Order: sequence, then structure tokens, then C-alpha cells
Amino acid sequence: MKINVVKIGGGLINDKKLLNASLKFFCMINGYKILVHGGGKKVDYILNMMNIPKKMIKGRRITDKKTLNVVIMTYAGIINKNIISLLQHNNCNSIGLCGADGNCVKSHIRKKNTIDYGYVGDIKKKNDINTSFIKFLLKKNITPVLCSITHDGMGNLLNTNADSIASNISISLSNDNCDVDLNFCFDKKGVLKNIKDPESYLSKINFSLFQKMKKNNVIFNGMIPKLENGFFALKNGTSKVSIGLPDKIIDSSEKTILCM
Amino acid sequence: MKINVVKIGGGLINDKKLLNASLKFFCMINGYKILVHGGGKKVDYILNMMNIPKKMIKGRRITDKKTLNVVIMTYAGIINKNIISLLQHNNCNSIGLCGADGNCVKSHIRKKNTIDYGYVGDIKKKNDINTSFIKFLLKKNITPVLCSITHDGMGNLLNTNADSIASNISISLSNDNCDVDLNFCFDKKGVLKNIKDPESYLSKINFSLFQKMKKNNVIFNGMIPKLENGFFALKNGTSKVSIGLPDKIIDSSEKTILCM
Repeated sequence: MKINVVKIGGGLINDKKLLNASLKFFCMINGYKILVHGGGKKVDYILNMMNIPKKMIKGRRITDKKTLNVVIMTYAGIINKNIISLLQHNNCNSIGLCGADGNCVKSHIRKKNTIDYGYVGDIKKKNDINTSFIKFLLKKNITPVLCSITHDGMGNLLNTNADSIASNISISLSNDNCDVDLNFCFDKKGVLKNIKDPESYLSKINFSLFQKMKKNNVIFNGMIPKLENGFFALKNGTSKVSIGLPDKIIDSSEKTILCM
Repeated sequence: MKINVVKIGGGLINDKKLLNASLKFFCMINGYKILVHGGGKKVDYILNMMNIPKKMIKGRRITDKKTLNVVIMTYAGIINKNIISLLQHNNCNSIGLCGADGNCVKSHIRKKNTIDYGYVGDIKKKNDINTSFIKFLLKKNITPVLCSITHDGMGNLLNTNADSIASNISISLSNDNCDVDLNFCFDKKGVLKNIKDPESYLSKINFSLFQKMKKNNVIFNGMIPKLENGFFALKNGTSKVSIGLPDKIIDSSEKTILCM
């Protein structure tokens, strides 16, 4: 079973035109596909409208109870359901899921060490991803669209990094006899050698080059966990991992391919 | 295929303890079941937090674009996903759906006559309910939990009355070789003869008694569309329609049964 897992980033989701275009490219993928999305910028906007202060430490969101409710409303509510209605309009039969739906993604609340991240969940165990349920939908030609909310199985919803969900789903499906390509889509052509030059993308990056670029601060912020999740997927059975623009999902050129 | 369709009302959803208890009773139903919910009171709370004025005409919500976004976030987001995580915790494998998910409930935007209701959708056609998708989930022992958001198939999400969704699903499944019981659950024992006396519920109500009680203003407000939807379901193939407390879903006593 060949599957394309596509993660779309916040920059594409927040702009109506870009989102529409991205979804059209997603619909053009032949065969089985899965979409994973976050949408952090929209959460900031709603937090602001509700006068709930945004709390971040080192680029990561602190998810207290009020923030969790906003995160659930935004990811699983407005963003996920708008995506589904647009996909249906494009004749892509799809279903929006948080991790609790069909028990498809379980997670474990992050331990409170030096920083208390609040209601944040990490995927840790092999059977945290319910691959049989995901394959059951795919075989019926229903495209799963996962938002970055998971559950702990004890009645609690948790905020979980969307790149990590995409990576873990790719690994679990690969370990369950699937041939998986993982595509991180965002608003750049790939991993840039120079952040100021949008054309300076690398066609390939291996782990040692990534480590070097991270050390030299050429790769920073959200690109670090994205690449970490990408290399994690590649090392654990995913056939191919790439980063680039949404119109290059089905195209091998003009994007960054991750290598061992 | 015997199916219990259960609609839970806003009064039960807004109170954490009542919701938990209602879901436990729902889980106790043997065999195939479907849950339908609204949650209007929570929408009012969020509108207020976001400084968006609440607009109602004759007890019905006027859903402008901003209100639609809040309605989607609340019904499909926070309420639906919390219900799913609680059902999973109670070992009821369930999936949260809006009408766009799996194209399960389509609707048609209400025409602007004397009142412009905004982004409100009505279920009109026989094939607006995707019974084959609902039965596909049920046969896999996945319980569908529908919120009161539908879609028009053109990329638009619409606000739709939850009683009407429950009624139309019951009819469509009945017409697709299912034996359906429709249970409206709320915070009263049934249809009351005297609104001030919670014990004054009718054990039975037929259409002419309903008409008489409506005329005499004994039945009013939201109880009118609920009973209209109930009688509509009964007249169109639903085996049994009842109204009462959530602990009486599987019990024929102490609730109001609708008769022809």
C-alpha cells in the first residue's frame, strides 16, 4: 500500500488563497493520501480576541487549560472542518480527525521538568498510532485529515506538534507494510542556505549537514524540530522525506530531499 | 439493523457532571448507536468572550459569518472532541463528525425571505444523509457522534438544528432497511403538562394533543421544533420516538412516547 503523508504548515493555512491552492495540489495526488495540519497563527489570533495571554518558552507554546480549549476549537474545529468542506468541494472524500476520533492517535502528557508545558502530549509508543483504523478509511477511499490534537485515553485531549504526528504516522504505517512518502509543505522552496534568499534551497540534506547548519545557526526555530521529525521518520522506515512548496508534492524537483 | 439515535440537548452539554452521566448512559446502550448534539449555550458564552453580539429572532439564531466561525469552533471543536475523548475513556469507540466529514450530512442554505438567517442550512433531500457511510462506521463498531454543522458540498459549512439532524438521520436509516429508535434527551422527564411541575410529564403524546397544547401555549419555545421533528420522524418510518432524561434511554418507563 503506497501512501503519501502531507503536512501543511501554519503559513499556508492562514492565507485563504494559499490554503485553497495547497488543497488543490493535495487533491491531485493519485492513490492513498493523508493530510496533517497545525495552525498556530490562527490560535494566536483567537487567543487575542478572547483576551487570553499567549505563553511561549523557547518557541514552544505553554498550553494551560484556557489555551487548550482555544487550541481544540481552532485546530479540530474551524481549521479542520473548513479543510474538509473544501476537499469535499474538490471531490476528495475526506474525514477530519483529532487523535481521539476512532482512537487514531494517542499521546502521553509531557512530564513537568524545568518547564511545565501544560496540556501537551507526546507520541511515544509503537501502538499510539491506530494504523488499522487509518488503513480501514484509506481502503474505503476516505482521506484522513488529522489536526494536531491527540488524547491520552483517559478523557483528556492534548496539544501535539503536527510535524511529530506526521512523522509518527509515517513510521507506524511503514512498519505496518506500507510504502510511505512524507512531504512537509510550507511557504518556502525547501531548506534554505540563506534565509534571505528564497531561491537558495538545498536539493538534498543529510543528517551531518543538518547538524552542521544547526550549529552555525543557518537552521533555526521551527525548522529544527521539522528536520528532526523528518530524519526520525527516514531512519525508521519511511521511504522518502521531502520539504518544500505544496505544488511540488508530486514532483521530485525543486524541493529539499532528506538523505541518511 | 437495529439503531438507537440519541440527541442530547444544550442543558446536558453545558454541565460537566450531567454530560459525563449522560455519556455513561449512552455507553450502556447495547448494539448500534448514534449520538447527535448541539450546544447553543456554549456558543453564547464564546460569543460573549469574543465580543460578538448574539443575534436571535423568535428564538432562532441569526448566523452571520463571525457567528458561523464561533458555531463551528464550539460544536465541531470543543464540544464534539470532548465528547469523543470521554466516550473513548468509557470504552466506546467513537468518531466525531460534522456533515462535511465523509460527506455524511448535506444541507441547503435557507432562502432569505422576510428574515435572513445567514449561514443556516436545512436538510431537504432524501440523499442528503449518507446512510452507507454511517452504516459502514457502525458495522465496524465505531459510534458516530454528529454535531450540528452540515455542508452544502460547495465548500461552505452551515449551522443546522441538531433536532432536525437527529430526525432526518432516523428517517434516512429507517428507509435504508434499519429499525431506528429516536431518543431526545434533555434535562426534563418528558413533555410537561405544567412547566412548573417537573413530575407532570405525559407518558404519551399524539399529534392532535401536541397541536392542542401548542395552541394553548402549554408547549412553547424549543419544545415546538423538537416535537415537530419527532412527529416528522415517526410519520416517516422511525420505529419509536421518545423524549426524556438520559438515564431513561434504554428504559420505556418515565418518559414521553410519541404516538401517531
